[in-house]
Amino acid sequence: MRRSLIMSRRDLDFLLYEWLDTETLPSRARYADHDRETFDALLDLSERLATDVFAPLNRLVDTDEPRVGDDGKVVLPAEVDKALSAYTESGLPTSVFDADLGGMQLPFVVHSACSTWFQAACVGVFAYPFLAEGNASLLVAHGTPEQVQTYAAPVIAGRWYGTMALSEPQAGSSLGDITTRAVRQDDGSYRLTGTKMWISGGDHELGENIVHLVLARIPGAPAGTRGISLFIVPKHLVAPDGTLGERNDVALVGLNHKMGYRGTTNTLLNLGEGTFTPGGEPGAVGHLVGEEGKGLNAMFHMMNQARVSVGAGAMALGYTGYLHALQYAEERTQGRPLADRDPASPPVRLVEHADVRRMLLAQKSYVEGALALVLYCARLVDEAATADSPDDRATADTLLGMLTPIAKSWPSQWCLAANDLAIQVHGGYGYTRDHPVEQFYRDNRLNPIHEGTHGIQALDLLGRKVLMDGGQGLALLTDRMRATTRRALEIGGEAAAYAGELDGRIDDLLMVTAALWQEGDPEQALSNATVYLEAAGHLVVAWLWLEQVLAAGDSTGEFYEGKRAAARYFFRFELPTIGPKLDLLASLDRTTLDLDPGWL
Amino acid sequence: MRRSLIMSRRDLDFLLYEWLDTETLPSRARYADHDRETFDALLDLSERLATDVFAPLNRLVDTDEPRVGDDGKVVLPAEVDKALSAYTESGLPTSVFDADLGGMQLPFVVHSACSTWFQAACVGVFAYPFLAEGNASLLVAHGTPEQVQTYAAPVIAGRWYGTMALSEPQAGSSLGDITTRAVRQDDGSYRLTGTKMWISGGDHELGENIVHLVLARIPGAPAGTRGISLFIVPKHLVAPDGTLGERNDVALVGLNHKMGYRGTTNTLLNLGEGTFTPGGEPGAVGHLVGEEGKGLNAMFHMMNQARVSVGAGAMALGYTGYLHALQYAEERTQGRPLADRDPASPPVRLVEHADVRRMLLAQKSYVEGALALVLYCARLVDEAATADSPDDRATADTLLGMLTPIAKSWPSQWCLAANDLAIQVHGGYGYTRDHPVEQFYRDNRLNPIHEGTHGIQALDLLGRKVLMDGGQGLALLTDRMRATTRRALEIGGEAAAYAGELDGRIDDLLMVTAALWQEGDPEQALSNATVYLEAAGHLVVAWLWLEQVLAAGDSTGEFYEGKRAAARYFFRFELPTIGPKLDLLASLDRTTLDLDPGWL
Repeated sequence: MRRSLIMSRRDLDFLLYEWLDTETLPSRARYADHDRETFDALLDLSERLATDVFAPLNRLVDTDEPRVGDDGKVVLPAEVDKALSAYTESGLPTSVFDADLGGMQLPFVVHSACSTWFQAACVGVFAYPFLAEGNASLLVAHGTPEQVQTYAAPVIAGRWYGTMALSEPQAGSSLGDITTRAVRQDDGSYRLTGTKMWISGGDHELGENIVHLVLARIPGAPAGTRGISLFIVPKHLVAPDGTLGERNDVALVGLNHKMGYRGTTNTLLNLGEGTFTPGGEPGAVGHLVGEEGKGLNAMFHMMNQARVSVGAGAMALGYTGYLHALQYAEERTQGRPLADRDPASPPVRLVEHADVRRMLLAQKSYVEGALALVLYCARLVDEAATADSPDDRATADTLLGMLTPIAKSWPSQWCLAANDLAIQVHGGYGYTRDHPVEQFYRDNRLNPIHEGTHGIQALDLLGRKVLMDGGQGLALLTDRMRATTRRALEIGGEAAAYAGELDGRIDDLLMVTAALWQEGDPEQALSNATVYLEAAGHLVVAWLWLEQVLAAGDSTGEFYEGKRAAARYFFRFELPTIGPKLDLLASLDRTTLDLDPGWL
Repeated sequence: MRRSLIMSRRDLDFLLYEWLDTETLPSRARYADHDRETFDALLDLSERLATDVFAPLNRLVDTDEPRVGDDGKVVLPAEVDKALSAYTESGLPTSVFDADLGGMQLPFVVHSACSTWFQAACVGVFAYPFLAEGNASLLVAHGTPEQVQTYAAPVIAGRWYGTMALSEPQAGSSLGDITTRAVRQDDGSYRLTGTKMWISGGDHELGENIVHLVLARIPGAPAGTRGISLFIVPKHLVAPDGTLGERNDVALVGLNHKMGYRGTTNTLLNLGEGTFTPGGEPGAVGHLVGEEGKGLNAMFHMMNQARVSVGAGAMALGYTGYLHALQYAEERTQGRPLADRDPASPPVRLVEHADVRRMLLAQKSYVEGALALVLYCARLVDEAATADSPDDRATADTLLGMLTPIAKSWPSQWCLAANDLAIQVHGGYGYTRDHPVEQFYRDNRLNPIHEGTHGIQALDLLGRKVLMDGGQGLALLTDRMRATTRRALEIGGEAAAYAGELDGRIDDLLMVTAALWQEGDPEQALSNATVYLEAAGHLVVAWLWLEQVLAAGDSTGEFYEGKRAAARYFFRFELPTIGPKLDLLASLDRTTLDLDPGWL
């Protein structure tokens, strides 16, 4: 059978079943209706749908970019609607939700594995159901029962879509500076006015309605993030019986024209500027979610899940790029081996050249490492929700919080690097639009930006997560790593050698962390936070490569040899690169702090 | 005065006059008609023309990509022709050529500095005169006087354009496998048949004619590169008096549709397939340049110059990206300082944030380091041509050969990285086509591919240049570096500290080089050649940063402080990254060699 160029089912099976013990999850009450057979059926379904319906769309949504029609409505290729309808009909939008909301109660880790197929096949179109799911999840966690019934249920059913509307033209990374106003009305609803920027899926004609989750300030609220509240602002007003009413005043101002990721509309929206006047009154109608001033807390529910999923999307683009590069390298012939350059001999396959192997192994180590990372995080979501003891649930939640900035940033950086290498393996062909790798590269470049930039993830890791609960998160994470290295040291051989290296680097990271925060000066401690994020990311992925080596055990065959080869590459070529980073951090370098901007 | 967003004249002046002693060149006979005044006038002219005529075209040639019209002719925006006419009228195409060919006899280093303005303003359009110049240079060096008069003179005058036609669909990196045939005719001319791929500027309606320099095999020639000859194949045949005759059989099959660099047509050409029948006979008419079987040697004349210029183009894209990012960071406000996060205080400029400064300093260190590298190489071209003694000329030539793979690959890698950071500084805005940085990033991605891929440069450095003349080139290069570190050690302070580090790394590189070649096994030695190339590249650029620090001396003011800050960044953040690379090489790692492709 021809190997899929989208994702590797073999790798997913290995990680789910040979590593993450996914088969044991149905012993928990929430997943009792499932077994490996249902998991596998959904993985099969996802592969089929992604392959047959989503992948064929991927170039089309790039060339036939969203535009605003004469009637002011967003025009997308008709195939997008068809693909999303097929996704809805498959029932997959309901995967992770409760049975009483029509959901499957599927473990999040299995759902995440299924989603990788769609992310790899057509990330731009899959963004709509992905955003919808996050949106509904937030309401399920923070909304009233009525809000869940009215606004989340239709999204879960796949009839409506949803957004998160945080940024404004003047406030991207700095959410505390948003100025959208929400004024309370006598009936308990609010009227919102303001402008929201970068809203993905912010307008389109897919589904029947769009539920915007909007951050805004209520007059008199304190400055900064503590004054931000969260509101449901539907595109069309919804009657208590669920029927759609008139148009709310959420008006499309324009579409952003991006380098890639064009399948997803990205919008500038005006709220309450008078384009529509719902109920004859000015302002966009909104409904408070949770308490006033707690909007950002609630939004972080969605954001955290979104961040891991952004990492998963970056991984998926890297993964499909790797599979394409591998196929190309196996088919294309060029040149001779360095040891025997007889020009009369036939040229060899690209994959015979050491440098091409290096580029392929690098990609493999990045994308399979990233897949392990995002599935590990997804498994933690299940642990946090369903582990037997409250302690285990809290531990999983803390670990997940620690890993979230890494799960978002590491694949965004290194699976983009994988896409860069996939182009390079293709040579000139890879630079043309006749091959898909250039689009993967353009699409993936978004990921270090949205849902919190690379630098914001760094501040989150070193400025918040590392400090939280007296450093408990970092201790938990390094304890987990040490548990792995102990097992590896007992086994001996190559795994033990990796464990020894990893132990040394863990010591270094802890020492550096302490040194950075010794003075308690955030400016000094965080000045090179990005360097810290990148070092910690490589350390975590090296750990997960050791985990994979241990999961492979003594198994023989090409698949397991491939796991060992990629681990070898990562430990020899990649992990050592964090040495100079940790040295720099340990030196408390002040190059950037002491810089006068006039010198630039 | 508003700072240019294209290039920095201040930096060019610093490198040309405060570092590379360009003012002394007019003491040499070839440049006797020049002085600093004429150099400056040409730099002024280049800045003006690039700013007023080329930069406004840059987005247009991206969105209005070359296409084939109904008449089979290439359609470009009319503005391209106007811009190139203005370039021709300026006289700049004649810059480096001999006076008796109508040339200015300008030092190559000054010409290179002038060209950076056009490369940064609109690299895709500047590729036409850039290719033409290389083409004419090759003929001047290797053609007969008649060939120079007939085919080079009109190119030098800017009336015709030129290409180099090496690659074929099945032979890109492996030129020895080209199959285009050239059969000698009774009149001494040849008839060519075959297909050429990736030919930049391979067809268009600019100028009156296109001189293709085509690699082909004469029947009976040995296999491999030793059987390759070089031919002039004009688009339109040329009569002895220089008038244009009928159409030669060089037929456009199609245009390649690229991710970026769209201003330059990139073509698939058929030679002698019968689209035209010049003189009523089949085959494209060609004229042998130099001796049979020596075609690749002659072509490398053009290729080497082209490789340094590719590095210069990559640098220029990185440089303009940096200037755009800097301006954005100086104007855009967002967030608060980490030491004082009062949300009621006004937001600060991006450039106040340490992480943004890191991204800007990184870009500055890459692009100014790359500019120093390409101008240093350009200066070596002048030395090789005009230094007083034959020894000095030979030394310059050897050094230039050593540095060429680095001058091509290092800017292609790191100035692309600079473009990546320029996008990141812009945040979401940088990902949209409303800002130019995304195009710089797409345009620059070509540079690690064309004119010899990154991996090919690595083989050239470690497999050829390092070995040539018993290792004389590497010895020369490291001697030059040691001369710099000796001066720095005498001065003391920060420069001496850098020198100490550099000396240690030079030792490491020499040790690693010897270890790699100890067994004389090319497969082992070259298996990680790319890692070697990248380590050597960072070492060379660190050396050039120390050179710049020494050139800055005790001078005060923002410009010089900026040089020192960028050097500090490079020595603290960048140079140490070569440590793990050299360690890996020293270990004679066999990860890629021992890989079974089935494991991928």
